[in-house]
Amino acid sequence: MVDLGDRGYEVYVGSNIFQKLVPEMVKDYQRVFWIVSQALYKHHEPLLKEVIKEQPIFIVADGEKNKNITTSSEIYDWLAKNNIDRQSLVVALGGGVIGDLAGFVASTILRGVKLLMVPTTLLSQLDSSVGGKNGINLSIAKNMVGTFYQPIACIIDINFLASLPKDELVSGYAELLKHGLIKDKYLFDNLEKINPKDLLQNKEELSRLIYDSGKIKASVVEEDEKEQGLRAILNFGHTVGHYLEAVTGYKRYRHGECVYGGMGYACYFSYKEGYLALAEYQRIIAYIRKFFKPILLTKGDEREFVSIIKRDKKANDKGVKFIILNKLGEAKILRNTNVKLLEKYFIKYLGKADSLIKIG
Amino acid sequence: MVDLGDRGYEVYVGSNIFQKLVPEMVKDYQRVFWIVSQALYKHHEPLLKEVIKEQPIFIVADGEKNKNITTSSEIYDWLAKNNIDRQSLVVALGGGVIGDLAGFVASTILRGVKLLMVPTTLLSQLDSSVGGKNGINLSIAKNMVGTFYQPIACIIDINFLASLPKDELVSGYAELLKHGLIKDKYLFDNLEKINPKDLLQNKEELSRLIYDSGKIKASVVEEDEKEQGLRAILNFGHTVGHYLEAVTGYKRYRHGECVYGGMGYACYFSYKEGYLALAEYQRIIAYIRKFFKPILLTKGDEREFVSIIKRDKKANDKGVKFIILNKLGEAKILRNTNVKLLEKYFIKYLGKADSLIKIG
Repeated sequence: MVDLGDRGYEVYVGSNIFQKLVPEMVKDYQRVFWIVSQALYKHHEPLLKEVIKEQPIFIVADGEKNKNITTSSEIYDWLAKNNIDRQSLVVALGGGVIGDLAGFVASTILRGVKLLMVPTTLLSQLDSSVGGKNGINLSIAKNMVGTFYQPIACIIDINFLASLPKDELVSGYAELLKHGLIKDKYLFDNLEKINPKDLLQNKEELSRLIYDSGKIKASVVEEDEKEQGLRAILNFGHTVGHYLEAVTGYKRYRHGECVYGGMGYACYFSYKEGYLALAEYQRIIAYIRKFFKPILLTKGDEREFVSIIKRDKKANDKGVKFIILNKLGEAKILRNTNVKLLEKYFIKYLGKADSLIKIG
Repeated sequence: MVDLGDRGYEVYVGSNIFQKLVPEMVKDYQRVFWIVSQALYKHHEPLLKEVIKEQPIFIVADGEKNKNITTSSEIYDWLAKNNIDRQSLVVALGGGVIGDLAGFVASTILRGVKLLMVPTTLLSQLDSSVGGKNGINLSIAKNMVGTFYQPIACIIDINFLASLPKDELVSGYAELLKHGLIKDKYLFDNLEKINPKDLLQNKEELSRLIYDSGKIKASVVEEDEKEQGLRAILNFGHTVGHYLEAVTGYKRYRHGECVYGGMGYACYFSYKEGYLALAEYQRIIAYIRKFFKPILLTKGDEREFVSIIKRDKKANDKGVKFIILNKLGEAKILRNTNVKLLEKYFIKYLGKADSLIKIG
């Protein structure tokens, strides 16, 4: 599915494909190293043991706070002690934290070994499994350290989603919605008929949505693997989303929830600056508000807006690369957007009745 | 000089070119971050201050022991606090430790920023500045973590060599000799007329030797950037060299000294296994012994040979990728060389009169 020449790879989506495909794929490797989410392991221990057998496992406690240099360093030592060699395979089995950590470590241990991605949360199935970006956090900012590194394949088994909390599903759904908004009006039309809380009731439809969403992301990544240009549109909703995560200490809200907030703001900005039509703005916001409660900030949080936005990887001295919508299904990159202008609209947005971000 | 398509770059060699070329190159970047060797900074403070001006400097204490995750992590934090962005430039100014650390950090901060290499020791000018390999050490083994990452240019100013201790020059010279042995008999013929202790007396000749040696390495790297095949010949002398470094605790001998020892052993193995002619073997060893004293091991060190060699990045379950000489100027890769066979010859080699490795 992802066509990047000799770095291209296939994405498989379906139900029960973990136990069908993964044993087949790992059997060609003499050494396989499993990096696995603790929560997932608890939920699916018998199934995982059946597939992993005697191969070495490193279990990572869930949570963004573990996606750091300390954990990477522990994984490096574990791989070295277990005699990893250049013909080895690393399997990332878990959500976005696991994929980011395992991807970074696999791309740098012995200057890069093979990597198999098995994302198990909706967010990671939609987002971090296609595209080859990985990253770890520094105390000062998220994803500051990382590489571009493509896996040999990505296996998306939607059966893992059943063990997720419902609000995790709603959070992950933000990325699906994002792909519709920036690149595919037809996908948005379909999503509009769905309540994300009922996603798991139709497995075939869900598989198709994840596959379509992956295709959209793959088409963007194929044109711009190293994020020199177009790929930036995938950051729609994320500039302000990252601010919301940072200002709430990465704990109060999930990543996807902050992305809803950020997308709401980006739509408002797009409308106010004369890009997005009012009717489409209202249609998008109405759909999000049906199942999503606004992000509540504490008074004073808005004063950190400028300083946090300036730390963004897409920022430079002239401003920030900000993604807006021209219309439903079409994004546009505004280079060097003045951060003070973003702040002005942000303050206004906080006071709007239908805002997805409020001071509460 | 290094032709890798859009990752290609130029290598400049000469005297006083640091102050001529570097200011010209860095002036296009709004943010420039200098990672500098402490010893070099002390020796050349006025010159460096003149070129670096007000730009941020991170000074790294010299020594292989600092080439680790802790130092990388400190550099990441320093870059983040100083607002590095994707248009920034990192300059590596120092020996191999600095190049490896700064190269690794530059390749992973913000998923990669621009890198300028300014190697200042003979070893790094000959070896680590061309080819784009970087690495940091884990406690269990050297260079276990790293990437392949090409700089925008490499500036080799031989004037920096004057501040090096003489035995540092002799150690660096090992790589020059290696390039002759594996790929260029004509280079070896020229080197044979030189005493490496007198290298600095003829700056033009030295510049030419460094440039020629760089060309040899570049030609190998162009054919095999990611070390899938041919590039392995650059490891000539390094498998046993790394063992010698490890078994002596990385302190007693310099890297280059251990490479002489490793090359001596590899020549012996090549001769005994019927590849290298006796006359050429004797000619090579006679030249090395003129200015190089054998590595002295402690009794018992030889018992760690097998376990340390098996940790080598070029090792797998079937054996190790061992580099031998077919003849002067022509190397050959022996895939899956039995480590027990290497050990057998190693024990024999320790007892030979003209051996470059002895139990003392």
